[in-house]
Amino acid sequence: MRAALVEAQKAFIIGEVPIGAVIVYDGKIIGRGHNLREHLNDGIAHAEIMAIQEACGALNSWRLIDCDIYVTIEPCLMCSGAIINSRIRSVYFGSRDPKAGAVESLYQVLGDSRLNHQVNVTEGILSDQCSQIMKDFFKAARKRKKKN
Amino acid sequence: MRAALVEAQKAFIIGEVPIGAVIVYDGKIIGRGHNLREHLNDGIAHAEIMAIQEACGALNSWRLIDCDIYVTIEPCLMCSGAIINSRIRSVYFGSRDPKAGAVESLYQVLGDSRLNHQVNVTEGILSDQCSQIMKDFFKAARKRKKKN
Repeated sequence: MRAALVEAQKAFIIGEVPIGAVIVYDGKIIGRGHNLREHLNDGIAHAEIMAIQEACGALNSWRLIDCDIYVTIEPCLMCSGAIINSRIRSVYFGSRDPKAGAVESLYQVLGDSRLNHQVNVTEGILSDQCSQIMKDFFKAARKRKKKN
Repeated sequence: MRAALVEAQKAFIIGEVPIGAVIVYDGKIIGRGHNLREHLNDGIAHAEIMAIQEACGALNSWRLIDCDIYVTIEPCLMCSGAIINSRIRSVYFGSRDPKAGAVESLYQVLGDSRLNHQVNVTEGILSDQCSQIMKDFFKAARKRKKKN
C-alpha cells in the first residue's frame, strides 16, 4: 500500500484527485497507476485501470490470475467491474468512498456469486494516510476556488 | 445501432466476442469501438470503453455531456460504471446479458440516485440482430472446440 500511496502522491502533485494503485504478482509490482482523468481527458483513466493495463502488458494476458491489487480508495463501479473482468484474486484498499464505492459502500459487487468471478476483499490498510491525502487535496482545491 | 452492429461484425471477423458500440454527439458518430480483449490482451478493452475513449479524444474532454451510446449488448458493471463516470446522457442497447448485464439484468446501476450522474436507458433496439451475431459466434466457437 505504501507504493500505492506513492502513486497517489504523483496524482496530487499534478492536481489530480490523489488515488493510487499497484498490482502485485509473485511478490513483485507489475502494474502501477494513478488517476489521470484530467491530464488524459479520459474518464476511464482511474488509478486501478492504469495499473490493470500495465499489468496485462507485463503478463501479456488479460487474465491477471493470482494477482492482487492495492488501491488507496475503495474502487468505484467501473474499477470494481474491471477488477472482476481481469480475474484479479484480491483487493486491498485503504479508505471507503461513501459516495461511489462499489466494494462495501454502495454495492458489494466483488463477492457477487452470480458473476463468473469473485474477489477477496481486505479494507483499512493504511486507511488514515489514504484518506488524509484526499482531505488535503480537497481542502487545497476549496482554497483555490475561494481565491478565484 | 446499425453502426454498432458493423462494429460487432468487425469483432466477429477477428474472433472476438462480437459486441460493438458507437457514441453519438449532435447527430454525428464521434466514437466507435468493438471488443478487442484477446487482441490487445487487455480485460478493459470492451466495445464501450474503446468508443468512450475515442469520443473523449474527439471532444477533448472526459465529460461526454449530451452524448448517447448505442451498444449491441447490455453493458457489464465495468462499462456501466464507465458510462456513468463519463456523464453520458443515454444508453441504447440491443439485447440483455443475463449473466453480466448491469443495466437491467443483474443490477440497474444507471438509474441509481445515490450516484452523481444518472443515465437514460432504452433497450431492445435491433435486438434480434444483436443477439443473433452472438449466437452465431458461440455456435462457431463450440464447433471449433469440438473439432480440436
